[in-house]
Amino acid sequence: MEISELGEFGLINRLTGNLEYRNASTLKGVGDDCAVITPEANMQTVVTTDLLMEGVHFDLTYMPLKHLGYKAVMVNLSDIYAMNATPRQITVSIALGKRFQVEDIEELYSGMRLACEEHSVDIVGGDTTSSMTGLAISITAIGVTSKEDITYRSGAKETDLVCVSGNLGAAYMGLKLLEREKAVYSQQVREAEEKAKTNGTSAKEAIDAIPQPDFAGREYLLERQMKPEARRDIIQKLKEAGIKPTSMMDISDGLSSELLHICSESKCGCRIYEERIPIDYQTAVTAEEFNLNVSTCALNGGEDYELLFTVPLTANDVISEIDDIKIIGYITQESLGKALITRDGQEFELKAQGWNPLKG
Amino acid sequence: MEISELGEFGLINRLTGNLEYRNASTLKGVGDDCAVITPEANMQTVVTTDLLMEGVHFDLTYMPLKHLGYKAVMVNLSDIYAMNATPRQITVSIALGKRFQVEDIEELYSGMRLACEEHSVDIVGGDTTSSMTGLAISITAIGVTSKEDITYRSGAKETDLVCVSGNLGAAYMGLKLLEREKAVYSQQVREAEEKAKTNGTSAKEAIDAIPQPDFAGREYLLERQMKPEARRDIIQKLKEAGIKPTSMMDISDGLSSELLHICSESKCGCRIYEERIPIDYQTAVTAEEFNLNVSTCALNGGEDYELLFTVPLTANDVISEIDDIKIIGYITQESLGKALITRDGQEFELKAQGWNPLKG
Repeated sequence: MEISELGEFGLINRLTGNLEYRNASTLKGVGDDCAVITPEANMQTVVTTDLLMEGVHFDLTYMPLKHLGYKAVMVNLSDIYAMNATPRQITVSIALGKRFQVEDIEELYSGMRLACEEHSVDIVGGDTTSSMTGLAISITAIGVTSKEDITYRSGAKETDLVCVSGNLGAAYMGLKLLEREKAVYSQQVREAEEKAKTNGTSAKEAIDAIPQPDFAGREYLLERQMKPEARRDIIQKLKEAGIKPTSMMDISDGLSSELLHICSESKCGCRIYEERIPIDYQTAVTAEEFNLNVSTCALNGGEDYELLFTVPLTANDVISEIDDIKIIGYITQESLGKALITRDGQEFELKAQGWNPLKG
Repeated sequence: MEISELGEFGLINRLTGNLEYRNASTLKGVGDDCAVITPEANMQTVVTTDLLMEGVHFDLTYMPLKHLGYKAVMVNLSDIYAMNATPRQITVSIALGKRFQVEDIEELYSGMRLACEEHSVDIVGGDTTSSMTGLAISITAIGVTSKEDITYRSGAKETDLVCVSGNLGAAYMGLKLLEREKAVYSQQVREAEEKAKTNGTSAKEAIDAIPQPDFAGREYLLERQMKPEARRDIIQKLKEAGIKPTSMMDISDGLSSELLHICSESKCGCRIYEERIPIDYQTAVTAEEFNLNVSTCALNGGEDYELLFTVPLTANDVISEIDDIKIIGYITQESLGKALITRDGQEFELKAQGWNPLKG
């Protein structure tokens, strides 16, 4: 169905008509000039926003719309958890090129709803408009946390342990795989078209006959790229263990870049150890296949959405017992700089070569 | 300066480095995973968001970047006031095509800052990224109001008076003027180029010699289109007069469309009088020049950002004394429909032909 048949209000009704609100703090959702939220007793509000542009942040040739919707929400929830907070509401703005049908947007929205459902978040408002070109998605997420729990980037202290959740570099290797297959497929399409032209046969049939890419054994990397999960579980585990991180942020632009942010905001240095950076087996194998240094991928590859945080040295024993958290180094005085110690004991200055969407 | 020279973080620092925070509730602004806001005692939070796309919502051939920044903020503040609330914070996300320089974005930001300054609003976060094509601006505004003051679209009751602030249709006529001059200018450029080609002279000189359009006497209409003002003054005047509207919204898509929203949310009908719709003299003159029915422009032209609200009949005397507010009709039972009474006493059903960005 064409979107213009429904109009803006018709489309909004269709997308948000049967939204349920899961949070008592959501007083009014979609349908007025503003959403209305009741503050929770003794809680502070945290707010984050992201703008995702087609061709820069996502490529619809391999990113299904449902996954894109899911991911667009997750990257915002990840920022909320990185404050040691709990997400409650999001607003969703979408700008659509003419090539999109109502069904496409429902697909995108279904991924957003799924992400919201999993994290008990309400969609309380937004904006739906047209775009002269590609798809643009802007999400703002709102969460709550107590004054005691809130965790900034600025609280790391000398001797604190530097920790990361999960493993790093996998989302980047997933992207590399998808990009390679896209290039291969484009080449095959060109060849099929030429061949069909020479033989006077149907180009469409020849293109349809191109085999699907085989990602067997690499599913994990694709999932890390296409369906990232915000690490609420880590926040919960830390709380259960009675540990409050001294500083925290999520890893969206690469470990190096994020750790430098923590050091700069906390006015400290750090020493991290290459051999301690958690890397999945598939990431390592695929990096080798691409002739890439796997540590570089883990340090500078973006979109892992893991948590980077520091805890007091005294938490060492407790943190070592928690599944899926790895201690990769420690915080030093600022004057000692930011150092990466390689496997062979060499010391390098940590540099941000992170994924920069402005250079894209 | 090229934006890539600064990178994302350099650009953000440059734009937000010396931001001051005016509100006590702004605990942490730009510089962490989230902004942090302390709820105010007994206040509720209202949230609104807008996504503006180049070529759909604005045309940079006649819209200076500073005005665009100012307007992008104002349209969001207007939604906050329409809840009878006070804006406190905004987040700003921008996606930039390669043709933009650092100075352009500073210009855009300077307009945003000016709007924030005038309304004591803090810029607390955002996202800056690149775009494959045009400029995209997404703003989320957060405000506060008490449970008693908050005004929805749904509270209008039979016999309530329907009121509007300011005058209507002016922003639309401003847009018409700008579009006409753009078309004239394009034609003059084509002619100058052809003439220069024929004569073997410089096309650039011929184009530079094209006179600037003369908008003398029409400045008000251009200002309504390019520099709209959110009507905080009306909210304040109503409060001072001890009047709480029973329903309210801002007029962004045209009076008809908005009034139908209020009727549908409030489950009521209405009767409004064509002769009572406030129209500026310049709007009327310009509509005639364009061979347009001025009432149609006032009913369906978008972007006025005036307030539409209903008050109890008992407020009649008080509201009539307030400057810049006009009573245009009253609320009826739902079964009586939504009627426009024309100057010659005919009755028409009110229809939304409002400005629909999805049909654009």
